[in-house]
Amino acid sequence: MLIGAIEAGGTKFVCAVGDENGNILQKTSFPTVSPEDTLASAKQFFSSFEMEALGVGTFGPVDLNKNSKTYGSILNTPKTKWRYYPLLEKLQSEYNIPVYLDTDVNTACLGEYYYGAGKHAESCLYMTVGTGIGAGFVGEGKVFQGKNHPEMGHMLLKQHPNDTFVGSCPSHRSCLEGLASGTAIEKRYGRKANLLTHLDEVWEIEAYYLAQGLMNIYVILSPEKMVIGGGVLKQERLYAMVREQFMKLLNDYLEVNDVDELIVPPKLDDEQAVKGSIALAVKNKR
Amino acid sequence: MLIGAIEAGGTKFVCAVGDENGNILQKTSFPTVSPEDTLASAKQFFSSFEMEALGVGTFGPVDLNKNSKTYGSILNTPKTKWRYYPLLEKLQSEYNIPVYLDTDVNTACLGEYYYGAGKHAESCLYMTVGTGIGAGFVGEGKVFQGKNHPEMGHMLLKQHPNDTFVGSCPSHRSCLEGLASGTAIEKRYGRKANLLTHLDEVWEIEAYYLAQGLMNIYVILSPEKMVIGGGVLKQERLYAMVREQFMKLLNDYLEVNDVDELIVPPKLDDEQAVKGSIALAVKNKR
Ligand SMILES: Nc1ncnc2c1ncn2[C@@H]1O[C@H](COP(=O)(O)OP(=O)(O)O)[C@@H](O)[C@H]1O
Ligand SMILES: Nc1ncnc2c1ncn2[C@@H]1O[C@H](COP(=O)(O)OP(=O)(O)O)[C@@H](O)[C@H]1O
Ligand SMILES: [Zn+2]
Ligand SMILES: [Zn+2]
Repeated sequence: MLIGAIEAGGTKFVCAVGDENGNILQKTSFPTVSPEDTLASAKQFFSSFEMEALGVGTFGPVDLNKNSKTYGSILNTPKTKWRYYPLLEKLQSEYNIPVYLDTDVNTACLGEYYYGAGKHAESCLYMTVGTGIGAGFVGEGKVFQGKNHPEMGHMLLKQHPNDTFVGSCPSHRSCLEGLASGTAIEKRYGRKANLLTHLDEVWEIEAYYLAQGLMNIYVILSPEKMVIGGGVLKQERLYAMVREQFMKLLNDYLEVNDVDELIVPPKLDDEQAVKGSIALAVKNKR
Repeated sequence: MLIGAIEAGGTKFVCAVGDENGNILQKTSFPTVSPEDTLASAKQFFSSFEMEALGVGTFGPVDLNKNSKTYGSILNTPKTKWRYYPLLEKLQSEYNIPVYLDTDVNTACLGEYYYGAGKHAESCLYMTVGTGIGAGFVGEGKVFQGKNHPEMGHMLLKQHPNDTFVGSCPSHRSCLEGLASGTAIEKRYGRKANLLTHLDEVWEIEAYYLAQGLMNIYVILSPEKMVIGGGVLKQERLYAMVREQFMKLLNDYLEVNDVDELIVPPKLDDEQAVKGSIALAVKNKR
């Protein structure tokens, strides 16, 4: 069984064809331009394969309410050409197979859950810390959706005692994203995050906020695995620092068997979303 | 079909018999003493009814891990007579019918979801703000459990600018419970919460923390209803204040149709947990 997958990113599209175990047989990528031209490039790549289903992980905001008339459409995005574009509908009419769609972070979470760091877990959180902070949660095989959709990057946090930064989130100032995204780090120090490697304080504060975000998720969702990735986590020492802060903040209130197994890096490198899109299609087809 | 229900509280037991629509036919309550004597009183009450199942909402901590050898046992509680008491096992061997058990806050949530303020909602949060702060979440008819169990009262929050109180939680100091429980209010001002009615600042700060807690839950779980109750909410003006703060903190980031319908008081008064225990038994039996 061949499955098609699209990671529809704001800057590039990744298209792949894989088997139902998440093995990628062929893959390509190209820049995201207008919807018509971008989907034409995708069509060209997929035309030489006979696929049984297509899974899509898209940038957002996207309408994921199945009862909505605009289900599967991109919503009000700064990328004007894509604004209100009925992505799912267009793909469904172009390919004569079932098409399944979710956000890029949710498909990334599905990827890690089925084929990566969360493979043997009942439930798995995936959080990406990059320009912004986004997270998805999969439990019992399904992406957790809620009434609206979760926006975990915007929870409010306790300020670090040595941090006077007001926060970079235009809506909430000092939410998790406003305090700990790559953007927040750059605004706090006036330099790109990757140029701050030598400053211990930067990463202490960063670990404190990430640990706090994970702790709040832990007391609310209680996931078995928490996978954190994205550009900021290229600072690999953050993993040990986040784990230490997490245990310190939690302060034995809930049992944690082994924090090294609870808070982990992704295993699928840049292929989470594409592999997760395969999983999305495979699991829904069944 | 008659269903038995027990709300096993730390200070009193409530026993009831009801029908499968949550209507209570008869109810009694008595103080929680030793497990043997308390269960004997329960047995006496139930002996005149022919029940098909029994639902139990218990005080905690309780082992809810179905794979655990001590599933359904009370864990390490300050109530020494109940420490490690195998509540579920004892009830199962005493009554020759299926017995289902969850925490008191989870059954309270089930009660509001099936028969109360969350009746027509897909998903419902129930938060009780009393001596401590506890919350349960029901989605698609099921209590959300997670790997451990959620302990939402212990999420960390941003401090109110005018609040210098360090927080009352022995584990985290300024978590939600440490900042906004009845205990926190009493420690912050040195007087019982119900004696502070005339001080606006008390309730402004209280509303700010409750709204923050609800916002963090909203961005993580996205429930359709958020029911808040418990002793502190006897201060009824808090509902309007919490809604206002919630909208202010969320700052239009996520759409909220009608906050008056999102954040609501309970509808079942003191019968949430007992009615929810009925629901627990009815839904599991099916
Ligand atoms: N080596 C690094 N150390 C710390 N931060 C980094 C590093 N490399 C990139 N970043 C930060 O990661 C962010 C980009 O994250 P990334 O996940 O790659 O992109 P996006 O979130 O846009 O998809 C930027 O804010 C950048 O400053
Ligand atoms: N009228 C009131 N206004 C504000 N707080 C109150 C009021 N009545 C009780 N409380 C507070 O509620 C808490 C008890 O909550 P309750 O839900 O009744 O009990 P518990 O949490 O122990 O089950 C106490 O901390 C008390 O100060
Ligand atoms: Zn924000
Ligand atoms: Zn706490």
